[in-house]
This record gives sequence, C-alpha cells and structure tokens, in this order.
Amino acid sequence: TLKEVLNDVPAVDVSELLEELDNEIAVVIFRLLKKEKAADVFSYLSTGKGAELLDIFTAQQLSDVMSNLEPDERVALMEELPGHLTQRVLNSMEKDDRKLVQKLLGYPEESVGRLMTPRYVKVKKDWTILKSMEHIRRFGHSVETVNVIYVVDEKEKLIDDLRLNQLILADPEAKISSLMDENFEALSAFDDQEEAVKMLSKYDRVAMPVVDSGGILVGIVTVDDVIDVAEEETTEDMQLMAGMDALDDYYSQTSISEMVKKRIGWLVILFMGQMLTVTAMATYESALAAAAVLSFFIPMIISSGGNSGSQAATLIIRALSTDDINLEDWTKVLKREFLSGALLGGLIGLMGSIVIALWMMYRGELFSIQLVLQALTVGCSLVGVVLFGNLSGSMLPFVMTKFGLDPAVTSAPFVATLVDVTGIIIYFSIALLLLQGVVL
Amino acid sequence: TLKEVLNDVPAVDVSELLEELDNEIAVVIFRLLKKEKAADVFSYLSTGKGAELLDIFTAQQLSDVMSNLEPDERVALMEELPGHLTQRVLNSMEKDDRKLVQKLLGYPEESVGRLMTPRYVKVKKDWTILKSMEHIRRFGHSVETVNVIYVVDEKEKLIDDLRLNQLILADPEAKISSLMDENFEALSAFDDQEEAVKMLSKYDRVAMPVVDSGGILVGIVTVDDVIDVAEEETTEDMQLMAGMDALDDYYSQTSISEMVKKRIGWLVILFMGQMLTVTAMATYESALAAAAVLSFFIPMIISSGGNSGSQAATLIIRALSTDDINLEDWTKVLKREFLSGALLGGLIGLMGSIVIALWMMYRGELFSIQLVLQALTVGCSLVGVVLFGNLSGSMLPFVMTKFGLDPAVTSAPFVATLVDVTGIIIYFSIALLLLQGVVL
Ligand SMILES: [Mg+2]
Ligand SMILES: [Mg+2]
Ligand SMILES: [Mg+2]
Ligand SMILES: [Mg+2]
Ligand SMILES: [Mg+2]
Ligand SMILES: [Mg+2]
Ligand SMILES: [Mg+2]
Ligand SMILES: [Mg+2]
Ligand SMILES: [Mg+2]
Ligand SMILES: [Mg+2]
Ligand SMILES: [Mg+2]
Ligand SMILES: [Mg+2]
Ligand SMILES: [Mg+2]
Repeated sequence: TLKEVLNDVPAVDVSELLEELDNEIAVVIFRLLKKEKAADVFSYLSTGKGAELLDIFTAQQLSDVMSNLEPDERVALMEELPGHLTQRVLNSMEKDDRKLVQKLLGYPEESVGRLMTPRYVKVKKDWTILKSMEHIRRFGHSVETVNVIYVVDEKEKLIDDLRLNQLILADPEAKISSLMDENFEALSAFDDQEEAVKMLSKYDRVAMPVVDSGGILVGIVTVDDVIDVAEEETTEDMQLMAGMDALDDYYSQTSISEMVKKRIGWLVILFMGQMLTVTAMATYESALAAAAVLSFFIPMIISSGGNSGSQAATLIIRALSTDDINLEDWTKVLKREFLSGALLGGLIGLMGSIVIALWMMYRGELFSIQLVLQALTVGCSLVGVVLFGNLSGSMLPFVMTKFGLDPAVTSAPFVATLVDVTGIIIYFSIALLLLQGVVL
Repeated sequence: TLKEVLNDVPAVDVSELLEELDNEIAVVIFRLLKKEKAADVFSYLSTGKGAELLDIFTAQQLSDVMSNLEPDERVALMEELPGHLTQRVLNSMEKDDRKLVQKLLGYPEESVGRLMTPRYVKVKKDWTILKSMEHIRRFGHSVETVNVIYVVDEKEKLIDDLRLNQLILADPEAKISSLMDENFEALSAFDDQEEAVKMLSKYDRVAMPVVDSGGILVGIVTVDDVIDVAEEETTEDMQLMAGMDALDDYYSQTSISEMVKKRIGWLVILFMGQMLTVTAMATYESALAAAAVLSFFIPMIISSGGNSGSQAATLIIRALSTDDINLEDWTKVLKREFLSGALLGGLIGLMGSIVIALWMMYRGELFSIQLVLQALTVGCSLVGVVLFGNLSGSMLPFVMTKFGLDPAVTSAPFVATLVDVTGIIIYFSIALLLLQGVVL
C-alpha cells in the first residue's frame, strides 16, 4: 500500500516528493506517516514549504511533529520561521522542549551552540564496560549517535571521548578509565559554526563534543549537520566572491525582489567606482581626441588585468578559507604573486605586442617604427596591468581580513573595477611617454 | 617524554608539525612513533612532503608505513606519487596489499572505486545478533567503521545495511533478518566521486556501501574521505569559475611554473576574445573620432554588464552543483533572470542617467536636450548590457553542460569578455541612434 511504501522510503526522498505536491495533498500524505517518520520528513523540507504546512496543520499534527523533531532541528526551525508562526509553534511544544529550544536559541547566531544537540551518551570513568553498555542499550534509542561515548566527571566536565567499538572490543569487567587517554578535542558552544566544519574535517570525526566556558559538556555536533553548514558557507563565499550579498536561502527559494535586493547594492557600489574610470578617461580627453585609435585597446587592457586579478583573488580566498595558508603568509604570497604576475604579464604583453602589430598591418598600416611603438604601448600596459591585477587580487583578501571583513568580499568585480581605473592610468601614462610625436 | 607526547597527540597535529620541519628531522620523529601511528601521521602529510620522506625512508620504515596504511590511503598515495617512486613503493608492499592496490587503481580516476575501502563488517541474515556481535568483536579492530554493518547473501550481494546501535539494542537471540527492512542506498564503484558527496550528504550517513555492476558489495566509502572530496571539488569549481584551470594540488604546494601553466591558458583565450572588442571599437572609429567623450563611458558600461553576469553565473553554477536546480529548470531560470536582469538594468540605467547628467553639468556643461540625450544613451546602454550580462551569465552554465563541459567553466572573466564585446555594440548602436546630429 501507499502507506507502507511511504514509511519504507527514506525520509529525505519523501520530503523531496512533498516539495512538488500541493499543500493540501502534502498534509494528507503526512497523515499516512508514522509520527517519528513524519517529523524526520518534516526536518528535510525547505523553510518555505515547512512554514506553509505548519500553517495548515491541525494542533495535534503540529504537536506530534514538534515533539518528534530532534532538539537541534527544532532550533533550526525556530531560527527560520516567519514571525506569525513563532508563537503558535512554541506553544505546541511540551514545556521541557520549549525551555530547551529557548536555551539553545540563547547562543549567538551561526554559533556551535545553535548547531549542537543535547542527545548523546555520557558515562563515568569508574563505570565498568558492562554497566556502560547497559546504559547505552537503555538510552541508545534516544540519542543522535552512539558511535562516540563521552566520559564526564562528577561535575559533568568532559574528560574524554571513546569510540563505541573501543567498548565493544574491551573486556566487559574492565573500567571505563582503562580505555581513557584523557586526550580529546572539543568545540566551544560559542565558537563560530565554521570552526565545527574545520575541526570535524581535520580530525575525521563523525561527531564532536561541545563544552561551555567551564568545560562542562553541553552537547555534540554531528557530521551530517556540519556537512550542511559547510555547503551553506561555501555557497555564501561564492556569492560574496561574485560581487553580491549572500542569499539567506537557496536560489530556488529566493523571490525575485529578494534577489534584486541582494544584488543591487554591490552593482551600485561598483557603478559608482566606475565613475573613477569615467573621470580618468576624461583626464586624457586631448590624447583621445588626437588619436581615437588609443581607445580601441582600452577594454582589452583593463579586462586582462581584471582576469589575472580574478584568478589571484579566488586562489587566495580559497586557500585562506581552507587553512591552506594563514594571514601571516602574506609576505610569502606577495613574493610568489609578484613573480607569477610578472611572468603572466610578460607572456601576455609579449603576445599582445605581436598580435596588435599584426592586427594593425592587417588593417592596412605599413610596418614602421610608429607601428612598433603603438604595439609596444599596448604590450607594456598589459605587463603592468596584469601584474597590478595579480597583486591587488592576492593582497586585498588579506587587507579585508585586517579590517575585520570577510576575505571573500574581494570579489572578481571589485578587483576588476579597481584594475579598470588603474589600468587606464597605466595605459595613458605609457602612451603619453612612447607615442609623443607619433600619434599624439 | 617527547616520544609519549608525540604518540598521544592526534596524528593530524603531528603531521602538521612535520610539514614545518626539515626532512632529516622529520624522519627522526617518525622513528619515535608507533607503527600504526606513524602510518596515520603519514596519511595526513601533503603529497610533496610525503614523497620527500618516502625517498629517504629506509626499506624497513617504508614497508612499516605501507603495511599500516588503510587500503584507500595506499590508493590515494599511489595516485599522486611521482613516477620514480612508484616502483619502489609498490615493491615495499606485501603481495596481498599490492594486488589490492592494483585492483583498486583499476577503477577510473575520480571514481567511487578509488575512494572506497574494503575494510567493513559484513554479516549474514541467518546469523543471530550474538554471533554477529562476536564477529564484530573479532574483526572490529581491522575495519574503518563498525557504525554500519552490511548484510550480504551467499553470493556476497548486498541486501541491507544496519546501524550498530540497532544490533546493540536488539535481543541477542534474534536473527539479523528480524532487523532488516531490505531497504538500503548504495553507490556504484564506477560512479563519479561527486556522487558519493551528494549521497552521503543527502542521506546523512557516516558511511555508504559500494557495489559492483552485479550488486556485489565491494567496499564502503566513509564520510571523512567524502568531506575531503567535497572540499577539493569545491576548490576546483571556484578555480574554474575564476577563469583558470583547476590546480592539481593546494595553492601552497603548487610551484610558480605550475601555477603559470594553469593560469596562462585562459588568460590567452580571454585576450584573444578581447580582439573582438578591439575590432568592434575600430568599427566605430569615425564616431569615436567625432566625439572622444563617447569613449569615456565604455569601461563603465561594459563592466556593469560583466558584474551582473558574474553574479548570475555564480548563482546558477552553485545552484546546479548543489542540486538546488536541475538542467530542465532552464526555462524557469530564463524567465526569472530576464525579470531580475530587467529590474537591475532599469535601476542601474536610471541611476546611471542621472549620475552622468550631473557629472557632465559638474564639468561645466549646461543643462540641455543634448546633455539629456547623452546621459540617456549611457542609461539605455546600461539597461541593455546589464540585462544581456544577466542572461548570458545564467544561460551559459546550461549551454556548457549541454556540450558536456563543466558548468563552472562559465567563469566571471568569460562572461565579462562576452559582455564587453556585446556591450560595445549595444552602446554604439544606441549612440548612433540618439546622438546623430548631437555630438556625432
Ligand atoms: Mg535528521
Ligand atoms: Mg581520548
Ligand atoms: Mg579529514
Ligand atoms: Mg542534527
Ligand atoms: Mg558564516
Ligand atoms: Mg564565511
Ligand atoms: Mg585516516
Ligand atoms: Mg535498511
Ligand atoms: Mg544532509
Ligand atoms: Mg579513508
Ligand atoms: Mg571532479
Ligand atoms: Mg566538479
Ligand atoms: Mg571588465
């Protein structure tokens, strides 16, 4: 029957199905699901769909779902719920659940405290393995993972973490203390959630304990949630790097007006930045009036600098965010990128000089010292602009961090705009130097 | 003692320390580590450092490390080893290990087969829980995870997966079959490794079974390795999106010459693309000669299109790679991005007209119909260019995929170059229309 199939299929797949269906039908499907399964399915819904369904759930359905959600999923839901639903959903929870949610919401936004779940197994160091295993059997169904067992002292202070297979492989009569090495890695509830991503990935863990400022164990963070955070944080970085504000939700869940709001800000800032190129160009009006040919190469030159800048900025931002390089490495990066910039600029400049000379001859000009000087003007400008693009692209992420900004704010468009202005100045300076008495 | 401390500290931290030390000292440190720990530490080293150390290891050290590495780590090492070391390392392995590595290397590059490990626990469906737990106790130390137990039939075909806590919580006398629901998710050994990222993340698993074309269980993929793959794939995407080839290694591990090789290709292609802007500009030589003022606004106009294109391309590439949207959604995206592009273009165009008019008056020109027409020319061009940038940025990722290319190849510089050419044509077309008899 449909009911059996729905209860057999993984929750996330049922959830994907519901996203496609009308809300009225989705609610009917929900009634066919076992209570735990229903909550699990609900936890995978997009915020929008989830809120729509909550709005038409009966009071009974609502409290069934809320009481079967994991505590961390309740927190995630409350964080994103539209205002008019918050009170109704809070009221639908049992008193203890509500208190817990409110406590967890007390941690800062995007902190580890908002991400953790208080459902884990803890044991004491003087317990035997046998007693611990009985404890796990008793409480194992109500925790998120039994893969890692946490050892706490009388004051609930975390003193070690053990893997379940250590317990399984050990002598049942032995004490927990015999397995302990008193070495453990823990997160603080006040850490940024990105710290959780870095730590779980670095130490190859499926869960990691979270302690408060006094070292008291207050929860665990599990790898499935950390993977979601990593995906969100990467999406955020990419959007910043593209020259826009990060979206609050998935692309498909964002309205056009919301989208325009997130994008217009940087477009306006970059447009205003381009007033500098207008002004720079106007400064060289007489040169431009004397030789329109000068203007032909402007888009080419400034875009080459933007391209090398875009490459450099991305390389450095990503290397910083994956901890491949640190802030203190900036001098090393500066040296490296000076060299690569000079090499890339040299290659592009050389090729550019030749290509431009050929292009001018193809247009009917005769080979002459004047033609060579014009081609060289473009070539030298390319060297300077590619090098400048590379240096600004690679150094700006460090500067941003210095000013407390996200290095990802060094977007390709931002670097390109900076290089556009500088590129125009570099180009005309070289032109005025080399082409005086030639075309000027 | 140093020895005790080194053996207590997590392997990844020892590895980070070794990266900073001279090879001679690193080898001495290695001697202080227990064999298993030494292999674990080795597995976290960068390819470069690892190869350097292998080169100076004694035959004994080499075979100790190789025999204690996980099979999947041996494969990862062989994949990246410089040619002159391959044979020496292969010879240092025990016969069975060597055979296994060679078999795993038979799977395609970047496939799930290259990522999996054959160390997992499998049970039969007619075993009791007690017998299964004894089996886990016996073989649990030699597998990567006991968190998930796999059920196979007589022909080694995968028929279900169980979580260890299901076994722990069950009656010891019950049969494995009593826990089975015969529902499971598995990867194929020939799947792309990105499939492993998507599946583990979607189904919130810490490990996932891998089967061959006949459904035979051949290995498991664990979440720690999948997280590393996700990080690499994201870095690769970002580098492509910045207009370069993806690096084979971390930024910090890439030599300057290697770096230049990865970057110069696209810089040259984009430079050649810019020959189109040169040619386009040359087409409008007489207009430019008649009114140098026309050229002032070119960088501003074309860059605005590049900016909206960069935003759109990134939004779509990321939405595609996180499965937020699918290829079939292209018409929906087209409609959305037409609307947002028109809105953004309208806003920027309106603002642009006003700002340019004010700028011209600030320069000393009097307010007149001519001035309004010039400002309108810039404004209308901005509308067209921002809209065109948005449409090409959002549609090119779909086009790339259609041609079997990675959508991430739609880099910001690529879109910008396309928009530069089109932008110039749009701008001069509008100028020739509106400014005939005004400044032309
Ligand atoms: Mg869940
Ligand atoms: Mg420990
Ligand atoms: Mg890792
Ligand atoms: Mg969770
Ligand atoms: Mg953040
Ligand atoms: Mg961030
Ligand atoms: Mg390992
Ligand atoms: Mg199953
Ligand atoms: Mg997930
Ligand atoms: Mg592994
Ligand atoms: Mg790939
Ligand atoms: Mg890819
Ligand atoms: Mg540009």
